[in-house]
Amino acid sequence: WEGEFFPGIPKINYEGPTSKNPLAYKWYNAEEVILGKKMKDWMRFSVAFWHTFRGTGADPFGAPTKAWPWEDGTNSLAMAKRRMRAHFEFMEKLGVDKWCFHDRDIAPDGKTLEETNANLDEIVELAKQLQGETNIKPLWGTAQLFMHPRYMHGAATSPEVKVYAYAAAQVKKALEVTHYLGGENYVFWGGREGYQTLLNTDMKRELDHLATFLQAAVDYKKKIGFNGTLLIEPKPQEPTKHQYDWDVATAFAFLQKYGLTGEFKINVECNHATLSGHSCHHELETARINGLLGNIDANTGDPQVGWDTDQFMTDIAEATLVMSSVVKNGGLAPGGFNFDAKLRRESTDVEDIFIAHISGMDTLARGLRNVAKLIEDGSLDELVRKRYQSFDSEIGALIEAGKGDFETLEKKVLEWGEPTVPSGKQELAEMLFQSAL
Amino acid sequence: WEGEFFPGIPKINYEGPTSKNPLAYKWYNAEEVILGKKMKDWMRFSVAFWHTFRGTGADPFGAPTKAWPWEDGTNSLAMAKRRMRAHFEFMEKLGVDKWCFHDRDIAPDGKTLEETNANLDEIVELAKQLQGETNIKPLWGTAQLFMHPRYMHGAATSPEVKVYAYAAAQVKKALEVTHYLGGENYVFWGGREGYQTLLNTDMKRELDHLATFLQAAVDYKKKIGFNGTLLIEPKPQEPTKHQYDWDVATAFAFLQKYGLTGEFKINVECNHATLSGHSCHHELETARINGLLGNIDANTGDPQVGWDTDQFMTDIAEATLVMSSVVKNGGLAPGGFNFDAKLRRESTDVEDIFIAHISGMDTLARGLRNVAKLIEDGSLDELVRKRYQSFDSEIGALIEAGKGDFETLEKKVLEWGEPTVPSGKQELAEMLFQSAL
Amino acid sequence: WEGEFFPGIPKINYEGPTSKNPLAYKWYNAEEVILGKKMKDWMRFSVAFWHTFRGTGADPFGAPTKAWPWEDGTNSLAMAKRRMRAHFEFMEKLGVDKWCFHDRDIAPDGKTLEETNANLDEIVELAKQLQGETNIKPLWGTAQLFMHPRYMHGAATSPEVKVYAYAAAQVKKALEVTHYLGGENYVFWGGREGYQTLLNTDMKRELDHLATFLQAAVDYKKKIGFNGTLLIEPKPQEPTKHQYDWDVATAFAFLQKYGLTGEFKINVECNHATLSGHSCHHELETARINGLLGNIDANTGDPQVGWDTDQFMTDIAEATLVMSSVVKNGGLAPGGFNFDAKLRRESTDVEDIFIAHISGMDTLARGLRNVAKLIEDGSLDELVRKRYQSFDSEIGALIEAGKGDFETLEKKVLEWGEPTVPSGKQELAEMLFQSAL
Amino acid sequence: WEGEFFPGIPKINYEGPTSKNPLAYKWYNAEEVILGKKMKDWMRFSVAFWHTFRGTGADPFGAPTKAWPWEDGTNSLAMAKRRMRAHFEFMEKLGVDKWCFHDRDIAPDGKTLEETNANLDEIVELAKQLQGETNIKPLWGTAQLFMHPRYMHGAATSPEVKVYAYAAAQVKKALEVTHYLGGENYVFWGGREGYQTLLNTDMKRELDHLATFLQAAVDYKKKIGFNGTLLIEPKPQEPTKHQYDWDVATAFAFLQKYGLTGEFKINVECNHATLSGHSCHHELETARINGLLGNIDANTGDPQVGWDTDQFMTDIAEATLVMSSVVKNGGLAPGGFNFDAKLRRESTDVEDIFIAHISGMDTLARGLRNVAKLIEDGSLDELVRKRYQSFDSEIGALIEAGKGDFETLEKKVLEWGEPTVPSGKQELAEMLFQSAL
Repeated sequence: WEGEFFPGIPKINYEGPTSKNPLAYKWYNAEEVILGKKMKDWMRFSVAFWHTFRGTGADPFGAPTKAWPWEDGTNSLAMAKRRMRAHFEFMEKLGVDKWCFHDRDIAPDGKTLEETNANLDEIVELAKQLQGETNIKPLWGTAQLFMHPRYMHGAATSPEVKVYAYAAAQVKKALEVTHYLGGENYVFWGGREGYQTLLNTDMKRELDHLATFLQAAVDYKKKIGFNGTLLIEPKPQEPTKHQYDWDVATAFAFLQKYGLTGEFKINVECNHATLSGHSCHHELETARINGLLGNIDANTGDPQVGWDTDQFMTDIAEATLVMSSVVKNGGLAPGGFNFDAKLRRESTDVEDIFIAHISGMDTLARGLRNVAKLIEDGSLDELVRKRYQSFDSEIGALIEAGKGDFETLEKKVLEWGEPTVPSGKQELAEMLFQSAL
Repeated sequence: WEGEFFPGIPKINYEGPTSKNPLAYKWYNAEEVILGKKMKDWMRFSVAFWHTFRGTGADPFGAPTKAWPWEDGTNSLAMAKRRMRAHFEFMEKLGVDKWCFHDRDIAPDGKTLEETNANLDEIVELAKQLQGETNIKPLWGTAQLFMHPRYMHGAATSPEVKVYAYAAAQVKKALEVTHYLGGENYVFWGGREGYQTLLNTDMKRELDHLATFLQAAVDYKKKIGFNGTLLIEPKPQEPTKHQYDWDVATAFAFLQKYGLTGEFKINVECNHATLSGHSCHHELETARINGLLGNIDANTGDPQVGWDTDQFMTDIAEATLVMSSVVKNGGLAPGGFNFDAKLRRESTDVEDIFIAHISGMDTLARGLRNVAKLIEDGSLDELVRKRYQSFDSEIGALIEAGKGDFETLEKKVLEWGEPTVPSGKQELAEMLFQSAL
Repeated sequence: WEGEFFPGIPKINYEGPTSKNPLAYKWYNAEEVILGKKMKDWMRFSVAFWHTFRGTGADPFGAPTKAWPWEDGTNSLAMAKRRMRAHFEFMEKLGVDKWCFHDRDIAPDGKTLEETNANLDEIVELAKQLQGETNIKPLWGTAQLFMHPRYMHGAATSPEVKVYAYAAAQVKKALEVTHYLGGENYVFWGGREGYQTLLNTDMKRELDHLATFLQAAVDYKKKIGFNGTLLIEPKPQEPTKHQYDWDVATAFAFLQKYGLTGEFKINVECNHATLSGHSCHHELETARINGLLGNIDANTGDPQVGWDTDQFMTDIAEATLVMSSVVKNGGLAPGGFNFDAKLRRESTDVEDIFIAHISGMDTLARGLRNVAKLIEDGSLDELVRKRYQSFDSEIGALIEAGKGDFETLEKKVLEWGEPTVPSGKQELAEMLFQSAL
Repeated sequence: WEGEFFPGIPKINYEGPTSKNPLAYKWYNAEEVILGKKMKDWMRFSVAFWHTFRGTGADPFGAPTKAWPWEDGTNSLAMAKRRMRAHFEFMEKLGVDKWCFHDRDIAPDGKTLEETNANLDEIVELAKQLQGETNIKPLWGTAQLFMHPRYMHGAATSPEVKVYAYAAAQVKKALEVTHYLGGENYVFWGGREGYQTLLNTDMKRELDHLATFLQAAVDYKKKIGFNGTLLIEPKPQEPTKHQYDWDVATAFAFLQKYGLTGEFKINVECNHATLSGHSCHHELETARINGLLGNIDANTGDPQVGWDTDQFMTDIAEATLVMSSVVKNGGLAPGGFNFDAKLRRESTDVEDIFIAHISGMDTLARGLRNVAKLIEDGSLDELVRKRYQSFDSEIGALIEAGKGDFETLEKKVLEWGEPTVPSGKQELAEMLFQSAL
């Protein structure tokens, strides 16, 4: 391959909200300081190698649709290297300095595990070199433990012990590679860690295995001196009927039960949130208040659709709520916003890849600006503070200190009589929120 | 009121599967021994006072439809007593010796908490007397912390400290009353413990309050010498947009976080399970494998409907799966099967109340008989055992002992090469399961 | 009752987007001309008497919460008259000149149908008088055929012929009353026209009855010289398991089958749309392209909730899409936007009623302004036009004229070879759309 | 390939309900007469070539898992012929004499349409020959208008006129081939006839195009003297966000609008029904009462899963309801039951293909036997008859004749007073239904 991969595409710059240029940022201004931090440091955007460079457009009822000019149709190492270069040029033009990858995204399988690992090493060397030239680093790496037929019953939760072992070998390598490349986090998305039917499943045994596997991952991470944050990425189902890390709360229950809470945080993916019946904001808040918010896979689903659509988030209200959690959390570092989002199958122009990412980045940037407006205005925060002020009292403090025994409280009630309960002011809260959009 | 409440209804007896009598059991034979236990001891059926005797047929779009002959249209103490007598006659004819109740089901509110408590005491005395005459006892009692307008923002999770205190007083009394009546368990269903919008909610503070409240309940239970099991009853939503005890796993995360695991078990309600996106069987298994299965509210939902329909369970496959969990759990005692199920709004004949309960009881009994067939046949259990047998090996034992470090496993993989992975045999499992129905 | 009903509330005026006054319009400026029509004529806003003045806050798990100062706790005619006055003062302050009502909202039941009709007549006279003083008129009236226990199996679809007849008598009166008050439309929402289970339902017979009923309504409307548009309001379920007018398409199939298409249009309610699995925009477009769009009940649901929440619409993107259909339709007249939306149960301040309506009105107004921006910019329309331009050709015209027989087309294909298919540009379309928000 | 394709599998015979042989029918006895017709004539079972012989086990997150011994890994004509032979041996062993296919299932694409058609002709000749030897015929054929990238925006609803033409050419050929092979029906499943977003869609124009396309199909069918029934197969979505043939009612609205009702019937697929929010029974009844029930694709979905799982139906209650519609319809001929169902991805044994089909066939057979029991018992039918008997009266007849004008009915109501409304007996109906299972 000679020359640029994206010759028609300029460096994407910030042009402001009045710009009509699809290949420019209207809201995301990397160096601009909002609420005390540069936008780029609030966001820490990341390109997902798999969707962006391995997404073919195939769906359960359709063959691949993409025919990117740099692809030669093979799965060779040479093609893998070319692809890696295209990827770095993409990130540079976009102005993004982080990327996420699965081991099997970036390098082809070999005939044996040794061959596969050797291929991986070769591509990783190229990535290391390109990273050096560009100051780009992985936000996180992960192992692809769901594609290969050997993982069809699970990886760490496979009933086959040899598959468990294979997954362990794969994660070992992926941890090493992520560490080597300076990745700041490492993710576990258990796409096959679940069941299709309870009729043939020993759920307890599988969960126990998942726990030992993750503990071994923690041990190995420490052994190799990798300090990245380990992240669990919940999803309720698909491709399984039930994925064990159903949502944030379920993952939290699991981590506590097996004594893994100190070692893991959560990577919340918005489309996964809505598939599990929660708003993305809810999942972020649940993670945040439990000190578990580690990363956000920034995408969105379709409210009328019951599968993972992995669309780029373009809803301003949703982005504003998402950013409100991020700001409350003080940011996401060492995590960030990974675009685990893909072009629509029907989007086949090269410029579409840029437009999609610009849209996703601008939407979140807009959300951040809106959060700043809300904080500056202060009315919504005040509405909430007032709502709980009855607990900022002596009796409230007593209760919150764990000293509100039932007998004491009953006496109080007989004293006070029927309590007055003020309006929840939800309509006013919604009005205040909307005024910032 | 003179004479019987259900003059047209005989004692419901077991007549066997060929009976065409709607007022007889076709499958439930209380004294029959299945898998080493009498059916009545596997089931421990309970009548829910609220649906059966306080259900009016009202729905969000419709006025009450029931006009039971024993109701006089008032909410007086006299009516409450009459109702209690009708309830006991109902249970005797049905052959059920347990009941569940909310404090506010059985006695009317007074103008003050003292009056209300006095009313409650009076009805409780009558219940105590009737229990003595019939050998009937409460399976569990609970406080109704969702009906009254004071609880509109929550009870233990209300932003109003005086409401928190009121709820505490109410639970104090309800624990006392349940204990006094010899109830074997006590339930917390947090219908208003959740939020309608995160915009006006401090979720962390509310969850902390819920925890202190439950801890205080534990303390008081011990203080009064009540040994019943405390049960959390999850539900994902309705009437809230998000109820904090969303499902079994979420409740488990909460209990662990606040150090309450040893003090609580879970009451799984089937319709709540499906509303949270899980099969009832899944929720039962999740509870069971974590040692949390305490009770089952036996009802079912409608797969095309997104709200709580509280129908009596008539699906034999579902009942068989439910009973398989119960049998694996060794039964539910001191919990049981409570019929938190209501007649359809359009069912207005007195005999309908009996038919509904007979249907619900017979369906579960049928499920139990099917489980016995499956266990006796043994093929399904064998299919599952075989599926995991690779872990009944030396390397499997190593892994399960927490000694399967990644380096050791990688060496093994390089030795073994590509693992063979057998068919999951789901279709065969489904065929075997169905053969027992 | 002496003096004003809403003494603390001023006339709600337009103050523009920078206003922080919750009791002012930020976007809705009634007299401002957008796209050639005054905002008030695009919107034709209407207050729903039932939610606004009969909504108590009761839900399936909770008692009423509202305690409006003008309510005396009775269901007397005097209270009904007072309520009607409060309603007119509300509309005047809000600056809305249309209202919608059910017959049973505005006047109490009597002991017989004659008494009930007499009560209705009395209140209607008062309404007529108040309308005269204020220039307010009903957008539409309707009969409440779902509350009363007699309608529990259906009204026009009841298996009981006497109930069918009763419903006919009720609709007869409601048509007369709506006509008398100058209502511009009349609505049929079949809350009980459906089934709870097919096991006891003769669906064909019930649908045939629904058709004869609606035809009789058409006949009577003509007889009394009422020229208002008859509107079917679809909803998929709730309170039924399946409501016959499931969605716009289902209603359309029904109207065509029974030859009623010329006589009815559709009243699309956004929360009903999403409950049936469609976006509101989809339902509006389906109605519009079939010439059926007659009215919009402007509310929204909650994407994580499976029942009718009837919230005021505050989502700007949704409102923009809704308004795009309205603009394409040339407006809704003689229909309009009725706020079939209710305060949250927990919202109990009088000012909340105003805030809620202002929010709902402002959101739609914002949507209209955004649509004007999109039209003026023209890029999105151009993207769509280009997408279909291959059909603006000779062969396209042939096909659209119904002359594209398969043999002719096959010849063409063998000529042309493999077609080029351009990108769908969905990401660009979303970016263009969002730029107007 | 030498010898049998399924050497380990015997001819599947009927062994009765006590058999424990997974490779035998327990309920389906082809020659047994139930309700006046042989079971094989009620069922008219068909094997779906695509799932059974082209299903690889690939899913959105996983590579193919199946490695059938007869597959050589190529997509050659020779492989296609071998596959066809395997298919016929499969059907003979199963005892099924019908099959369904897409054009692109049975023969590989060529470089041009001519080549592709030539390949198709070659395989069709082989099929014709094998059919002759076995008395097997296609239940229906169809064209695959969703896989190829050219159809990514639609086939008949593509914005590209050349794609519309290509689809026409493909359907022309598929009609010819189906006719040539003696197929009794022809199906249109519009997998890509819908939209992903309304932002870039002219829905009206696309629907008009779909109508002209189907009309041209009708014209061509008549031209070539093909008398098979044309069938529309609804599905709400997937792969589209909204498929135009959303459900039976939507398809019916479309057919009526474009004057196509006399030319098409509906192929109801159970998993599609539940994805559109209806029970399968509901969709069958909706089709039946409108004279549209033409075929059933017999599969089922998963109630907790929002995508098409295409499982074999094993739920006895569901099968009983399905068969009740079929019996009421007098059977499905010339349609039948096609197993549009696939093995689970994790099921990789050859015997699994047989077990799955046996399960599916036995379940429906069991349903038919249950329906016979219900009809013979007659109680459920009587419950329904009684429910509507008030309409079997003079006034009922008047109403049903369209002569129940509102004035006449009002007079009646004033005469009758408040109607008595009996219980709906839903619990009894459910008990009666369950007694047949």
